[in-house]
Amino acid sequence: MQKKRLVIIGGGFAGLNVAKNIDKTLYDVTVVDRHNYHSFPPLFYQVASSGLEPASISFPLRRELTRRCYRGCRYHMGDVRAIDASAKLVRTQYEDIPYDVLVIAAGTTNNFFGNTELEKHVYTLKSTPQAIRCRNEILDRLERASLTADAGARRRLLTFAVIGGGPTGVEIAGALGELKRFVLKKEYPGIKENEVKVILIEGTDRLLRTMSARSSADAAKALDQLGVEVRLHTMTKSYTKGIVELEGGETFAADTVIWTAGVQGVAFDLENTDVKPSFGGRFDVDEYNAVRGLDDVYAIGDIALHMDEKYPKGHPQVAQVAIQQGRTLARNLSRPDSRKPFEYHDKGSMATIGRNRAVVDMGKMHLSGRLAWMAWMFIHLISLLGMRNKIVVLVNWTYSYFTFSSGLRLMLRPGKYPVRSYWND
Amino acid sequence: MQKKRLVIIGGGFAGLNVAKNIDKTLYDVTVVDRHNYHSFPPLFYQVASSGLEPASISFPLRRELTRRCYRGCRYHMGDVRAIDASAKLVRTQYEDIPYDVLVIAAGTTNNFFGNTELEKHVYTLKSTPQAIRCRNEILDRLERASLTADAGARRRLLTFAVIGGGPTGVEIAGALGELKRFVLKKEYPGIKENEVKVILIEGTDRLLRTMSARSSADAAKALDQLGVEVRLHTMTKSYTKGIVELEGGETFAADTVIWTAGVQGVAFDLENTDVKPSFGGRFDVDEYNAVRGLDDVYAIGDIALHMDEKYPKGHPQVAQVAIQQGRTLARNLSRPDSRKPFEYHDKGSMATIGRNRAVVDMGKMHLSGRLAWMAWMFIHLISLLGMRNKIVVLVNWTYSYFTFSSGLRLMLRPGKYPVRSYWND
Repeated sequence: MQKKRLVIIGGGFAGLNVAKNIDKTLYDVTVVDRHNYHSFPPLFYQVASSGLEPASISFPLRRELTRRCYRGCRYHMGDVRAIDASAKLVRTQYEDIPYDVLVIAAGTTNNFFGNTELEKHVYTLKSTPQAIRCRNEILDRLERASLTADAGARRRLLTFAVIGGGPTGVEIAGALGELKRFVLKKEYPGIKENEVKVILIEGTDRLLRTMSARSSADAAKALDQLGVEVRLHTMTKSYTKGIVELEGGETFAADTVIWTAGVQGVAFDLENTDVKPSFGGRFDVDEYNAVRGLDDVYAIGDIALHMDEKYPKGHPQVAQVAIQQGRTLARNLSRPDSRKPFEYHDKGSMATIGRNRAVVDMGKMHLSGRLAWMAWMFIHLISLLGMRNKIVVLVNWTYSYFTFSSGLRLMLRPGKYPVRSYWND
Repeated sequence: MQKKRLVIIGGGFAGLNVAKNIDKTLYDVTVVDRHNYHSFPPLFYQVASSGLEPASISFPLRRELTRRCYRGCRYHMGDVRAIDASAKLVRTQYEDIPYDVLVIAAGTTNNFFGNTELEKHVYTLKSTPQAIRCRNEILDRLERASLTADAGARRRLLTFAVIGGGPTGVEIAGALGELKRFVLKKEYPGIKENEVKVILIEGTDRLLRTMSARSSADAAKALDQLGVEVRLHTMTKSYTKGIVELEGGETFAADTVIWTAGVQGVAFDLENTDVKPSFGGRFDVDEYNAVRGLDDVYAIGDIALHMDEKYPKGHPQVAQVAIQQGRTLARNLSRPDSRKPFEYHDKGSMATIGRNRAVVDMGKMHLSGRLAWMAWMFIHLISLLGMRNKIVVLVNWTYSYFTFSSGLRLMLRPGKYPVRSYWND
């Protein structure tokens, strides 16, 4: 029997779990990704805050696919531009890839809710390059503040606003708080601790809305201990010319604004079909993760919208859903006669605010403080791909724990590039 | 007594050795560097060939300067644009820094000998950003070749020319040879080993001209074993539209050309003086490293040109000269009544071609093969700044040794940047 051509868009947790678990005697598997590496979004904020280097949380897809469990899976580098639903083609900037079965596992990107002016000026944390950039900009502000005596310029340079009080917002605000508390006096003698302002802005009534009320309260307390100013019930109206304007008219100057307040599914052109992504740019799928209205097309992970009684607004956009959907889909595609509907087993959720500070919810259990922080580190360490990365991350975390600092405060900029370049593809 | 203001341009081996060894009761020390980190040029080629991540060979200058031996030294981020010799000012893009004593330790950059067309199209290895870029471009070629069946396109994509047979040229050519020999068949099943061409082009009659004839011969043999084509007595005339033209008229197509054939001193404007850099953009200095014709200005390391009987064309531009000149200058500035002229103690030189392949010259002793390679690794490991970096590099080398590969084949690109940016400073 001829194998079916299975194309998977995206080499994240969702996509790789399909490739790993599917029956390779039935399917010929191609993984398409714009990056040649798998990345680990839960730790992007540590790249931005100089806690880890980008290579420690990235793993080359080709190398991953040489493992026995992926035997025969191929990697194609490419940025998916369009899907032709009738010709059954995935179009990248380089080629058209034919499929018999398509799995969309492309994840999400930032959502600025139409505020294009703000979009131009904020920094973001939805990819490794974005995190690298954020790191460089934060370090740039500290260096430039060290060089000027002008009070107004220093205030602008040393005010860091984080918009969005979800896990990413809380974690990067906590990391900036630690910078303020522990790193400044050792390495930036020209900057006083009280000159640095870290402001976390959240529109609703609490941080970490998807977690328990106790976690929200513990996170807010931990941030307060690190000198982070938390503003709840606060919406951001605009950010232009270095001025943040809040709903209600209050303004403040900040040269650095980090946006973590919204995500949407990665977009492609959909050709020869009337199907469009649903709210949040997510694809409406049935209980088998089949995209409604399209033949032989599935969506899993953050880009899938599977609404059921328990999750009427869709499942949370977290790694565990992606992993479990990937596994279930692989099983269903391998054994089409005994398909099982997807059911999410919530293993809990966690966020860290800094050294010895974290919150964990598992069912009705709540942890905070050092024990939660150890649990957070353990879970993230084992989830990283590759033994080298696990060792290097452990070395870095251990080093940082004892030195209250990191050896990675590096502005590794790309340099100036001449005219000819493959970079703009 | 009022301390003198000592400004050091450059946080490399030369500059840091002045800062470390100078008497801080006599001098108030400022280190100026465009990068916020010390970098390690001997291993740039390993970044370019995905053997090490850039952070492993970089160390934040602020963190280094917190060490006891530098007590009181300050770091200023800045790209030095000009030196005003009469007002005694160093001008960066951010500020004018007054000095009583100035040490120029800015090192060298690429020299294209006026070939601006070639300059636009080649990749280079004289800084960390350049090495990162080179890595991304090499990986890009392998990915793109994997996607096309067009024979001509594959040949262009898979031909890598390295121009210049000094240590850097030999080392990057060797690393590309290892990629061809060991990595391809495991990770790039769509590319055959014999499709990849690595061509090392050298103008003179041997590789590694500054080393012994035995080292040159051993290096050529090791490169041959790795499938690298070595062309001696060959000058490159031009490189345009993907075509390399050699003197004599021979041409070949190559999408990737790496230029390691020339260096020159980093240039600044020199105001209110007639002094100009000498050949190779180096500053003509006396035996105390004082720049001839300028008051209270010294030059050390690669940018200094100190000609004496033993070195009529100046000292070799290597780390050991920089370190020794830095130490001697610090001593002379600390004890002006008992100055000693600089004398270079040559500790030998080495280059590596790949796994178990290296050459070492120490006086009349010559080593090659595995022992030389172990010596090479040991010397480079102990020369790296920071315990974290030493451990991480050792982990990577050990991992690569046993896997014949690396977990770092990552195209970490900077991403697309919006309009406002501090990057263009």
